[in-house]
Amino acid sequence: MNQFNTVIIGGGPAGLGLAYPLHSAGQKVAVVEENKWGGTCPNRGCDPKKVLLGAVEAQVKSDQLVGRGLNQTPQINWPQLMKFKQTFTDPVSDNSRAGLVSAGIEVFDGHASFVDEHTLSVGEQTITADRFVIATGQRPGRLNVPGDEYLLTSTDFLSLPTMPAKIAFIGGGYIAFELAAIAAVAGAEVHIIHHNERPLKQFAQAAVAELMNQLEAKGVQFDLNVETQSIKREADQTVIQAPNYELTVDQAFVTSGRVANADTLNLAAIGVEADRHGIVVNDHLQTAQPNIYAMGDVVAKRIPKLTPVSGFEAAYLSQELVESGAAIHYPEIPTVVFGMPRLAQVGISWQTAQEQSDKYRSQVSDMTNWFTYKHLNEPLAKAWMVVDKQTDQIVGATVISNEAETLVNYLTQIINTGQTMKQVKEQVFLYPTEASDLEYLG
Amino acid sequence: MNQFNTVIIGGGPAGLGLAYPLHSAGQKVAVVEENKWGGTCPNRGCDPKKVLLGAVEAQVKSDQLVGRGLNQTPQINWPQLMKFKQTFTDPVSDNSRAGLVSAGIEVFDGHASFVDEHTLSVGEQTITADRFVIATGQRPGRLNVPGDEYLLTSTDFLSLPTMPAKIAFIGGGYIAFELAAIAAVAGAEVHIIHHNERPLKQFAQAAVAELMNQLEAKGVQFDLNVETQSIKREADQTVIQAPNYELTVDQAFVTSGRVANADTLNLAAIGVEADRHGIVVNDHLQTAQPNIYAMGDVVAKRIPKLTPVSGFEAAYLSQELVESGAAIHYPEIPTVVFGMPRLAQVGISWQTAQEQSDKYRSQVSDMTNWFTYKHLNEPLAKAWMVVDKQTDQIVGATVISNEAETLVNYLTQIINTGQTMKQVKEQVFLYPTEASDLEYLG
Repeated sequence: MNQFNTVIIGGGPAGLGLAYPLHSAGQKVAVVEENKWGGTCPNRGCDPKKVLLGAVEAQVKSDQLVGRGLNQTPQINWPQLMKFKQTFTDPVSDNSRAGLVSAGIEVFDGHASFVDEHTLSVGEQTITADRFVIATGQRPGRLNVPGDEYLLTSTDFLSLPTMPAKIAFIGGGYIAFELAAIAAVAGAEVHIIHHNERPLKQFAQAAVAELMNQLEAKGVQFDLNVETQSIKREADQTVIQAPNYELTVDQAFVTSGRVANADTLNLAAIGVEADRHGIVVNDHLQTAQPNIYAMGDVVAKRIPKLTPVSGFEAAYLSQELVESGAAIHYPEIPTVVFGMPRLAQVGISWQTAQEQSDKYRSQVSDMTNWFTYKHLNEPLAKAWMVVDKQTDQIVGATVISNEAETLVNYLTQIINTGQTMKQVKEQVFLYPTEASDLEYLG
Repeated sequence: MNQFNTVIIGGGPAGLGLAYPLHSAGQKVAVVEENKWGGTCPNRGCDPKKVLLGAVEAQVKSDQLVGRGLNQTPQINWPQLMKFKQTFTDPVSDNSRAGLVSAGIEVFDGHASFVDEHTLSVGEQTITADRFVIATGQRPGRLNVPGDEYLLTSTDFLSLPTMPAKIAFIGGGYIAFELAAIAAVAGAEVHIIHHNERPLKQFAQAAVAELMNQLEAKGVQFDLNVETQSIKREADQTVIQAPNYELTVDQAFVTSGRVANADTLNLAAIGVEADRHGIVVNDHLQTAQPNIYAMGDVVAKRIPKLTPVSGFEAAYLSQELVESGAAIHYPEIPTVVFGMPRLAQVGISWQTAQEQSDKYRSQVSDMTNWFTYKHLNEPLAKAWMVVDKQTDQIVGATVISNEAETLVNYLTQIINTGQTMKQVKEQVFLYPTEASDLEYLG
């Protein structure tokens, strides 16, 4: 009897985040997964990346203090670091699947394809449901040039058995910046190849320039305005070719964006609109087919595709699919490039503040010589703040430093609660910390 | 013409924090200092301690990952660390004094003593003023036992040219815990001697027990129920004697509390009440003598004596002394024991929550196996949360972890803005960070 109230396609953070509450609410629920249970984040995304970055961070923070109280820099032992990473990633899929099973939620392994709006095929099986929720996420995009098949992906990077001596990332988005920082500290010669002059375009340009400087200081080379035209594999090396450009590396990784896993579900047959950017939904996460919803990274949306956003959407649908209610309303969504240093931002962008200077007050604070950063001998700490002139409320921030995520999390809370600079200054935080600097920022 | 509107006695964070705004408001202002300009925090308190702790933290965080991606542990080079510390402390006094002078604020070097309520002697000079603000801070308390003069203080610790092989702290308060963590990681054998069974009594007992376990794992020995009766210095060693107890160390430090610098100002002669705990003020920081105020660590008060509290009081008086207004109203004041790990707390105490279980819901979360901490291989992370049952608002927290100050700063803001657990869960924070765990805490 493969008949369900709700079938969720995709067993990642979004899918799991919805399955349990719907089950608890009394629905008969199934989840379908064709790859690793648990999805991108814990298997081949944020979590393993952060494990690698933990060692990188300890290395960098020690290195900064060598000659200033520490006698030597620890070095990354990549194969050992991989083993440590595997202690996190190896159990994820089995544990995620087993958790669903033991809760009484049905699981199906295999590729899903719609037969009609109430019927799904999963491999040899057929499932019917009142409602489907698509949460199939994204996969690494390809370059679609001759030799593209020689390019590895971020998934491959996170499982590299050894760190090659020389590598390149093709496509200068946040994945390239994060993995480049890891690889450079682990000892590789690293190139980031980008097709125009403006990598990491969703972040404030001045801040990106600073981050590029910092990565260059760690040996990362930026090859800008390079439109890759072909890839060759010769003598265990990868050759990247572009007009007036050729680079030979041990391995090259395609990091030119991610593609929605919406193209193999037979969506067109059931009237669900989707393209490379994802599935089109209304503000109830509902597709054009009223009994079919989508959430997480597979959705076409302007807000960042992040694990906590998936969690937020799953929490929303866990209400919406039990009793229909209000449209989804997103809070401020901060974003970060986890590297060394980190680059993080939230709220109204620096560029918007410059363009609307009648409305916004903008302030740059070079915090490098502030005690918080100087006592750790950090090379750079800087904040670009946006304050609403009329209300004195903090409405946006971009921060670069080794601890930028901490400051931006504080600022996210400040923005969410509508605090003015006056209210920030009236609070007392632990001293000295990033928070005790907040009063000087706006 | 040594006649002023306001004379501030004490050039520390409180005094400097008040002098500038009063001067800007048009007052004729002077500041008196008999020791180092800048006061305790930047010269012999929070700042140098945090510099030492920066290297300790980098060492500990690297050590945790040796065998898990890092090849070796950096070691503390104490003399080199001292030199790095001095780059922060050496310029403080001159710069602090010069800043006042260049702003046009008069400075007096020397010991202050009241002649009458409008007249102060400073060395050979006499100053008169409409109003005085006492901000003389505290100094390390003494033990008052035979041989007390052989005991060094926290000030001495922060300038130790070399780290002795074996040391003891007499008195188990937060200073002892912080310095013990530093000394242990720097390679010393460390004892903390405490007169009863309950060191660090202002923190939740269960949390202190965990911190003691962590310090013991780093080699710190706790000698409890030891009432020190005499000190001897023999053959370059210090011998601490108590009933049924004798300990010989290279150096011993008295860390049994701090004493208000209120006893040498001739306060009795002008009717200002003060004792060992400080100067008595009303809720306008005004003493019994209406034209004499006090702020900062020298004030007798229940709230913690911390640098940001001094700053808060200076900001309050900078308004109050220009136009009389409302009584001072303190926000939530978080406190921290900066060690490895840190222990931090804010708001309603765990003990109060246990005693008033009709009113408060309390929840312990062992976070050690949560990704945030496990990916850094931290030995312990734990949170004790207090939630108001009626409002669902977070009202108190105690946290132990290497990053406890970050989590407690978030929680301070949550408490200050009166957020409920529901409101916390509706926010999106950068993942994975301490903030993205907040939704699981209450």
